[in-house]
Amino acid sequence: MSNTFGSKYKVTTYGESHGVAIGGVIDGCPAGLAYDAEMMAHEMARRHEGARSTTRHEADTVEILSGIHEGYTLGTPIAFKIANNDARSDDYDTLKELYRPGHADYTYEARYGRRDHRGGGRASGRETAARVAAGAIAKMVLADKGISVHAAIAESISTPSDDSSGGVITCTIEGVKAGIGDPVFNKLNAHLAAAMMSIPSAIGFEMGAGFAAARMTGSQYRDKWRGDGTMATESNHCGGIQGGISNGMPIEFRVAFHPVVTIGQATECIDRQGQVRIWEPQGRHDSNHLPRTIVVVEAMAAMTIADYLV
Amino acid sequence: MSNTFGSKYKVTTYGESHGVAIGGVIDGCPAGLAYDAEMMAHEMARRHEGARSTTRHEADTVEILSGIHEGYTLGTPIAFKIANNDARSDDYDTLKELYRPGHADYTYEARYGRRDHRGGGRASGRETAARVAAGAIAKMVLADKGISVHAAIAESISTPSDDSSGGVITCTIEGVKAGIGDPVFNKLNAHLAAAMMSIPSAIGFEMGAGFAAARMTGSQYRDKWRGDGTMATESNHCGGIQGGISNGMPIEFRVAFHPVVTIGQATECIDRQGQVRIWEPQGRHDSNHLPRTIVVVEAMAAMTIADYLV
Amino acid sequence: MSNTFGSKYKVTTYGESHGVAIGGVIDGCPAGLAYDAEMMAHEMARRHEGARSTTRHEADTVEILSGIHEGYTLGTPIAFKIANNDARSDDYDTLKELYRPGHADYTYEARYGRRDHRGGGRASGRETAARVAAGAIAKMVLADKGISVHAAIAESISTPSDDSSGGVITCTIEGVKAGIGDPVFNKLNAHLAAAMMSIPSAIGFEMGAGFAAARMTGSQYRDKWRGDGTMATESNHCGGIQGGISNGMPIEFRVAFHPVVTIGQATECIDRQGQVRIWEPQGRHDSNHLPRTIVVVEAMAAMTIADYLV
Amino acid sequence: MSNTFGSKYKVTTYGESHGVAIGGVIDGCPAGLAYDAEMMAHEMARRHEGARSTTRHEADTVEILSGIHEGYTLGTPIAFKIANNDARSDDYDTLKELYRPGHADYTYEARYGRRDHRGGGRASGRETAARVAAGAIAKMVLADKGISVHAAIAESISTPSDDSSGGVITCTIEGVKAGIGDPVFNKLNAHLAAAMMSIPSAIGFEMGAGFAAARMTGSQYRDKWRGDGTMATESNHCGGIQGGISNGMPIEFRVAFHPVVTIGQATECIDRQGQVRIWEPQGRHDSNHLPRTIVVVEAMAAMTIADYLV
Repeated sequence: MSNTFGSKYKVTTYGESHGVAIGGVIDGCPAGLAYDAEMMAHEMARRHEGARSTTRHEADTVEILSGIHEGYTLGTPIAFKIANNDARSDDYDTLKELYRPGHADYTYEARYGRRDHRGGGRASGRETAARVAAGAIAKMVLADKGISVHAAIAESISTPSDDSSGGVITCTIEGVKAGIGDPVFNKLNAHLAAAMMSIPSAIGFEMGAGFAAARMTGSQYRDKWRGDGTMATESNHCGGIQGGISNGMPIEFRVAFHPVVTIGQATECIDRQGQVRIWEPQGRHDSNHLPRTIVVVEAMAAMTIADYLV
Repeated sequence: MSNTFGSKYKVTTYGESHGVAIGGVIDGCPAGLAYDAEMMAHEMARRHEGARSTTRHEADTVEILSGIHEGYTLGTPIAFKIANNDARSDDYDTLKELYRPGHADYTYEARYGRRDHRGGGRASGRETAARVAAGAIAKMVLADKGISVHAAIAESISTPSDDSSGGVITCTIEGVKAGIGDPVFNKLNAHLAAAMMSIPSAIGFEMGAGFAAARMTGSQYRDKWRGDGTMATESNHCGGIQGGISNGMPIEFRVAFHPVVTIGQATECIDRQGQVRIWEPQGRHDSNHLPRTIVVVEAMAAMTIADYLV
Repeated sequence: MSNTFGSKYKVTTYGESHGVAIGGVIDGCPAGLAYDAEMMAHEMARRHEGARSTTRHEADTVEILSGIHEGYTLGTPIAFKIANNDARSDDYDTLKELYRPGHADYTYEARYGRRDHRGGGRASGRETAARVAAGAIAKMVLADKGISVHAAIAESISTPSDDSSGGVITCTIEGVKAGIGDPVFNKLNAHLAAAMMSIPSAIGFEMGAGFAAARMTGSQYRDKWRGDGTMATESNHCGGIQGGISNGMPIEFRVAFHPVVTIGQATECIDRQGQVRIWEPQGRHDSNHLPRTIVVVEAMAAMTIADYLV
Repeated sequence: MSNTFGSKYKVTTYGESHGVAIGGVIDGCPAGLAYDAEMMAHEMARRHEGARSTTRHEADTVEILSGIHEGYTLGTPIAFKIANNDARSDDYDTLKELYRPGHADYTYEARYGRRDHRGGGRASGRETAARVAAGAIAKMVLADKGISVHAAIAESISTPSDDSSGGVITCTIEGVKAGIGDPVFNKLNAHLAAAMMSIPSAIGFEMGAGFAAARMTGSQYRDKWRGDGTMATESNHCGGIQGGISNGMPIEFRVAFHPVVTIGQATECIDRQGQVRIWEPQGRHDSNHLPRTIVVVEAMAAMTIADYLV
């Protein structure tokens, strides 16, 4: 249950930040799809270069272990592996007994009774590299069907010099025909929400007009039919989904991310007795993770749509 | 996949608005739980009485068909049925060939090639009665573990006389211990988001500080440890979840709902050729659905938490 | 997990033998399928009339609660209910504190801490009525694709006058094209085996040549290609499945059922202290359940195949 | 759906016989379990040494990529990789356009439109190495709970010099308490049947007395209670499971395997036009796979039981 996304285009990821490797297995990718290694490298670079402020230089080469033969997918599981090359884990020794504020240190220990404390372990943002790899292949599946995904930063405060920031990413999916999604519990918008809220630091999600729609009247909100012989509407307040099912308009949503919680300052942590202890961060951290999160949002969106179409 | 919620406390619902009945099957409810029929009736009444402006008077009695014996759950599936008593379906005859704006009429037909057009069919808000019934039993499961769920209207514009409104519902879950949730894709917040976005008219979701957190700095956002020997924090901007796992603080989130899309006025629909046709609504509709949605939010929250604890 | 069969044509059943009703919800049946009420009644009668020796006369009318509108499936969940009309449950009062040999009385209590002791509760053979109903609709799905399922008694000892018997049922599925099934864990033969072994009293399963194949040499066993421009083989020792995937030949398997374990004689039960207590059976029981099990085997086979094709 | 086994102790495997690697991801292994590398090596050797007649010498070292830290499981996914060292794939060039009898060559192509023809690709017996690795960790989980699994060859004809043979493997699971399993569709015996029938060459499965029970009377078949204050029975014809739930007796079953289908002789294959073509096998093949299958049966049994207990 835990580390798998999707029910038809199923992605299971693995890996701790400072373990041997991270990676995943994609089960359900259709056979006969051309694998685009260049596009994969480009997507991984987008995630890496988004983060100019980090000093951890990883190659992040995606090694394909199975499921692709002579350049085409076989329909069997595509396993991939991304080595953890540059892991200076002694930076983290002091964290072994401490719980940082805003991190999952304490909750992982409450859940499992132990954790890999080095660099956030499984809870590290490094985990998103596996999402980007799985998302790149999902995009290949979608491109084959004329569907594209595009995200961008919609809002971001300028990052203070001694502190960190977050922001809002907007995402548009174009080319999804009407009729994709399921009613009641498994609405397309519900799956998109879960996909987005699973991204590290995500704290809010809205379709179309979103929270602003809560302040509209019904006649302001509801999207008028164009009435021109198409099934299109004039506005797109609903974000392209009605009753959990796509209506053929672009699918539009926004995701809010809270700021980076590790900042380059002495930080009040607690120990296992709940007593305050001061920690001086030594590791490398972004002060704003949004540039590298754009491609993660796209990856999760692509995986969500692919799950309905394979 | 479509009509089931949860993987351990599994709820499958069924029913069209004007069919024989709506209802559900709960698979995974623990054995030996006392069934509180009075509480069930109370929850159903909360959903019904929330909607004072509707004129459709349904008893909405929940008939238990299985899984409860001599007042206690057996551990076997609990099937329940809610009769559709008062279904004046000829009100809807004119809708057979029309797609209303803001409704799922067109998307259901795009998905299935046909639909039950009477009163919204499967996409009707009536479907939420089954959620409330399943949620009432989930609350019995949670009460047994000292967990309570409480929702309330946080924002709602006053409803214009000739039009409709929506709003924002806030929800707090108290008593969840630290350590509940799963990492990466199946984060507790991701499941809550999916649960909430699956409610009819939901259009936005945020944990804790939510979208406002996107405008904070890291030092403003991150919750300080109290350092008093507990693992509690001073603020709760994260909404009680870190890395997808509960941290022992109250779980807090908000859900935005767009306004009711059927209003008592001549409405521009389209037909199957995409041409505009005017429809005069005859059915009974709320002008603000938030009062009856409060208990639905609680029901989905209870089902989400129960899914981790059974 | 427990009471659901299938992952695409998903059937969830409910009900205790002497509760209000038994029934189920089918989620995943395609939209636009004509519902054949006569065929449904015929299938239910096959299950009922197979059991001439029983004196419990149930109408076993299948009431459809949802998912069918104007004679056609909607694509939404099909809920159905079969009332428990004739439940003389006081026959079973003496069983409340006893565990019969060969029954699930003790294991249900070990699993759940309690049980509905009347007529076997959830473990009763009555539960198979819900399978037959769900299977009848699966057969409608398959008939639409040119697939038929046919089972028959292959072996059965003549039932001794004072005792009971079991036997072997053979089943053939015709019309399944090559390419249905999944590799490795979710082989079509693995799903068929699970489906058959889930039927009450099933104790063995074999594909094609089955256990006899264990005594063949490779050159005797492997099915020769006809070589006539088709992909057919001369023999069908493999039972129509290679590597978990159908090869276009008829799918053939056999299921062994142990004899009925309730016999009309004084029976050594034990109580909760593990002490022997004599019980005189009063209820109504078949002495050979195979005639009424034929249609159950077909139902489970149809549900298994439908799960791949919807 | 396809390449995952289990719903709580979830094992997803990947890999083609002559690709870069085979392996898997175990999601759901409890945290805090000591990882026994020596036992893992021993299990892999049992699979390898079972096959003395093969000349393909693989190290089959299991490389752990994640989920284990300082010798203990973290509760996060355990990914493992087994390199394909010795893959003389040009042996198989002639097979690219041919379908062998008794193999999955044709069915994989019917399913996916293509296949990796080298050494059976995904359908190769090599895939079972990943099962043995995942099963070894499942055994560590079970050992912690006092449960052991033991399989042995029960029947096997002596292998003819120019041909191949199969046989029957028996398996006993000891230490499973009463109350493990689910009713109706997800019976423990149904899951064991699916697990066993998923093993390459498996063609029959029976619990306890199995097919022989079909020829017994009820009074012969049903297991008498000992009546000595325990819940044990004198015989174990049911194989330790009643109504799909363990009864505390040893769990006993048998699996029939058809003979190896590749034999060292000129073989009638067909091409894509269904015309006979003669193929001279060049690869390395066992003449009897049962010795190396014993540990695979144990692995699948261990994974099945672990799935209920984690």
